[in-house]
Formats: sequence, C-alpha cells, structure tokens
Amino acid sequence: MYIGIDLGGTNIAVGCTDDAGNLIAKNSLPTLSGRSYTEIVKDMAALCERTVSDANAGMNEIKAIGIGSPGTIDSKNGVVVFAANLKMEKAPVAAELGKYFDIPIFMENDANAAAYGEYIACGHKTDSFVFITLGTGVGGGVIIDNKIYRGFNGAGAEIGHMTLRMDGNECTCGKRGCFETYASVTALRKITAEMMEKNPESIMHEWVKNRGQISGRTAFECAVKGDKAAIETRDTYIRYVAEGILSVVNIFQPEILVIGGGISKEGDVLLNPIKEYVYKYDFNKFMPKTDIRIAKLYNDAGIVGAAMAAKNMAEI
Amino acid sequence: MYIGIDLGGTNIAVGCTDDAGNLIAKNSLPTLSGRSYTEIVKDMAALCERTVSDANAGMNEIKAIGIGSPGTIDSKNGVVVFAANLKMEKAPVAAELGKYFDIPIFMENDANAAAYGEYIACGHKTDSFVFITLGTGVGGGVIIDNKIYRGFNGAGAEIGHMTLRMDGNECTCGKRGCFETYASVTALRKITAEMMEKNPESIMHEWVKNRGQISGRTAFECAVKGDKAAIETRDTYIRYVAEGILSVVNIFQPEILVIGGGISKEGDVLLNPIKEYVYKYDFNKFMPKTDIRIAKLYNDAGIVGAAMAAKNMAEI
Repeated sequence: MYIGIDLGGTNIAVGCTDDAGNLIAKNSLPTLSGRSYTEIVKDMAALCERTVSDANAGMNEIKAIGIGSPGTIDSKNGVVVFAANLKMEKAPVAAELGKYFDIPIFMENDANAAAYGEYIACGHKTDSFVFITLGTGVGGGVIIDNKIYRGFNGAGAEIGHMTLRMDGNECTCGKRGCFETYASVTALRKITAEMMEKNPESIMHEWVKNRGQISGRTAFECAVKGDKAAIETRDTYIRYVAEGILSVVNIFQPEILVIGGGISKEGDVLLNPIKEYVYKYDFNKFMPKTDIRIAKLYNDAGIVGAAMAAKNMAEI
Repeated sequence: MYIGIDLGGTNIAVGCTDDAGNLIAKNSLPTLSGRSYTEIVKDMAALCERTVSDANAGMNEIKAIGIGSPGTIDSKNGVVVFAANLKMEKAPVAAELGKYFDIPIFMENDANAAAYGEYIACGHKTDSFVFITLGTGVGGGVIIDNKIYRGFNGAGAEIGHMTLRMDGNECTCGKRGCFETYASVTALRKITAEMMEKNPESIMHEWVKNRGQISGRTAFECAVKGDKAAIETRDTYIRYVAEGILSVVNIFQPEILVIGGGISKEGDVLLNPIKEYVYKYDFNKFMPKTDIRIAKLYNDAGIVGAAMAAKNMAEI
C-alpha cells in the first residue's frame, strides 16, 4: 500500500492506495497556509495515520509516501523551494515528515503528480503521455517512458506558460500571451464578462444574477439553451484551448493527451471540437494521431499520482 | 566506425566517423530528387564505399549505418513515409540500402539526426537537450535520457509548428502563427523586405543591389554599420526567435538548448539577446537556468548525428 498527499493552498488531502493505485481511503484537512511547515507537516502526519486506519491497515504496511505540492519543488531533496500559495520557501517537507514515519518519502510538483495519476488511470503503459489541467491556471505534466519529465532542474512541463499569442494578454508570470491567459477558467470568466457587457440581451445576465457570480459554467450552460453570445463565448474559449493543445501535440506527439480540471467535466462538448481542430491542423498528416481524452480521476488525480509516483521512485 | 548519411532534397552527404563521432571522411553527390528511391540508394551505396575508402578503411569495419532524411520517417521500419522535397512516399530506403551492405541500418528524421549530432558534440551526457535549427523552416530535435524523442508515432519535436502568434502569419503546414513563420530565415528575408520598403534611405538597399538578393545576412551586416532600419529588422527577428525559445524552455527546461542553422553563425549577436530575454521571462525563477548555445557542427551535424544515432540503436 502507498500514501499519496496532495498539499494544496486550501486543503491537505491524504489518500491510501493499493499497489495498483486504487484509492482505498481518503481524508482532508484545511491547510491554513501561513503556518510554519513543521506545523503543517504535523497535521499531515496525523492525517496519514487516520487515513491508513480508515483503510483498515497499519503504517507498517505502507511502502512509500508521495507528496504533491504546488510551486517549485526540488524532488531529489524533497524540498518546497518556493510556493506562493503555501507561503513556503526552502521548506524540507519530506525530511520533516520523515521524523514521523520511517518510510521512503518523495516530493513532486502537484501538476506532475496529477499527470502521473491520470497516466496510471489510463490503465496501460504508454511511452508518451501529456496531461493538461484547465483550472485557475493551466498546469501540465509529461510522462515519458513511465517517468515524470521534469527537465534538468525540476521546473519543466510548464505548458501553461508557453506563448499562445505573442504580445497578447498579460500573465502573472511576468510575460505576455501565455496559454494560461487564454485557456484557464480565469480566462474563460474574463471572456464571459466581456461578452456579457457587449450583449445585454444574453441570458447569461440572468444566469449570473441567479447564482451570484460568473463561473466557468456560465457560457457552457447558457450555450446549450441556444444563447448566441454564450455560444460565441464557449466556442472562442474552446478554440484557445484547442490551439494550445495543437502546439503540445506538434511538440510531443504523445500517444495519449488528457484534459483535466473542473472545466473538463463538460465532456464531449469540450472534447469533440478540440479533437476536430487538432486533427485538422496538426503537423502529422501520415501517422496515427494522438488520443485526446477527458480526465478520469479529477480531484483524486493528485493523491493517486503522488502515491504511484512514490511507488515508482521507491522501486528504482 | 560508423557511417552517417544526410539525405537532403539537394545533396546526399555521406560521412565516416570513429566510435566517438569524429568525422574522418565525407563526400557528397547531388540527390537529383524525382528519381526513384532505388536509383538514389544506388548512388548512396557507391558514396558509402568511396567515403569508407577515403577514411582508409573497409566496409567490414563499419558497425552500423544511420540515414537522416527530411519528411515523416518510420524509424522502426526504415521507411520514408512521405518527404515532399525528396518526392518520396512509402520508400523502404533502409531495406534497399541493406541489399548492398549486410550491416545494421537505421533511419531518422533529419532534424532529429542533426539534434543528436549536436548533442554528441556537446561532449557530455545530459538527460535533457533541445536543438532548434533556423533555416528555410524551423526544425527541432529533443534528446531525453540519451534517446531521440520522437513521440509515439515518430512525428514529434516539430517545434517549428508550435503556435507563436495565434491567427498570425500563414504557414505552409495549413495553420497560422507557427514559430517557423516568424523565426525561419525565410521569415527574416520577408521582414527585411518589408523594412526596406518602409525605409528607402536604409543602406540595406545598396547591400542587396551589390549582392543581387536579400539574404538572412542583409539585416545583420547592415546593422553592424549602424543602419537604423537594419537594427530594427535584426532586433525584431531576434525577439521572435527568443519568444519561441522561451516557450521551449518553459516546456522542457532542458539542461542545454542549441541553436543551429545558417543564421546561428551570427554568434553572440544572436545569442546574447536571446539569453537575456529567456532568462528574464522564463517561468523558472529559483532553479538553475538552461544553458543556451550556438551549434558547433553546422552542416556536419546531420551526418555525425545519423552515425551516432545508428551506434546508439545498434547497441540497444
């Protein structure tokens, strides 16, 4: 059995999996970020014990622990180098958790961990796999030959920060035109707001009034009802996502590319036009095409991936 | 010893290398593309024998032959699936050359072969290496864990066809805004022509009159003399190149990224502003930075890379 920990800015989620990555038990606690890493790790350790107990097991049955964390992670040394939303800098989280458990402990960037989780959930080994998550930002993870690809410094696979439109939208990273500024849910909300302003007759106004605020679902739900402005909003957004995925496909030609994040719950409405666009324009005209799919694990991808990545690392 | 073959639309170049990839002898012949692949391979075989003889060796000392070819290559089966400028479709080039020599023969995409050559020329093994060549088009090659990364279908690493500016310049691939349409020498010539038209006082007009045509060197050479329009042309072009390399760095965070192609002979004039731009804007703020370099082998990268990739494949 393995433990996977998804250390987020809001919650710490801990899961206990079997050797194949099936989730047996899970629990979560608020992170209360801003606390010292030692306090956070103390809660994390207690949550591990509770979750293992919920799985009717003992800590002695756990072969390894994997921790997925946002920010820049030094996987080799198990250190959170910098994570703005955890308010951590050079925090030796793995070593700290090692004070509680005498078990191999590994750290991973959270998007990489989620990618590995979805890779495991795809059920078969492929030598090239890409995961793109559309959330507050756009995250990415690349699995090559059953290994998480991190680049030489651990900071690789920042697919959200490839340029989609040079000199375009301003990004929080300091440059302009990043894929993330067009394809994140944050971007979708912005496009929705702009379209609503231009289209006072759109039923999106009523939708937002009833629910209190614009969300990533506003345009998708109103488009189904035939609202023109909503359809245009949705299709504009989907084309941005598709254009970025097209670049990723031309670069990696992965056997499988999985789209995750909250917006991926839209399913075929999102997936089909992306496939159509990518298959029409990708540079590969003669060889088999990338299988583009919607994520399976959603919020559990991080804990399953962290657990399975730890298994992989422990076996090397 | 190994043989590397660079099968181009214009010339076939054959090189004989030692086990470390040092070029001992090389020769070339016009491809005369449009001929059948059997005729081309016949010339190729004769050129192999002549080159091995020039290296004071015999074919029995050759351990493997590598062929780099443009277009879509099926490496596993040694087939040119499709190559427009060779006018070849489903041509079993490796098997055909095998009729002449009873030696392991491997095929590779030409950009991948050149990437592998520059990787070998870097002299030490790195687990992440990217090569970008700025020529008529923009080619790319990615080496991960000492292996050429091809994607699951052999069509990967088409870095020239990632989007740099969505809805931008039209590309020969059928989509718009590809990196290649901004960063190739073809693009530089176009930018130069446009700037010349807008600036009749520029000394670029005289440069072009003296040499008969605009080239990739026009702006670089006139900029050195202080010509404002030439400086603007050069700097605009360099920023396009830098923006694409920035995306590649954010995605791969390679330990080494090498820039090749004719324009890379400009050296530091090209390299330094690219480094400055990438190091300023890349997403990695806390870990070591990618070492960005100018190519070492230039035109020999293809033959050395094909030879060494064949060595690598033969040893697996």
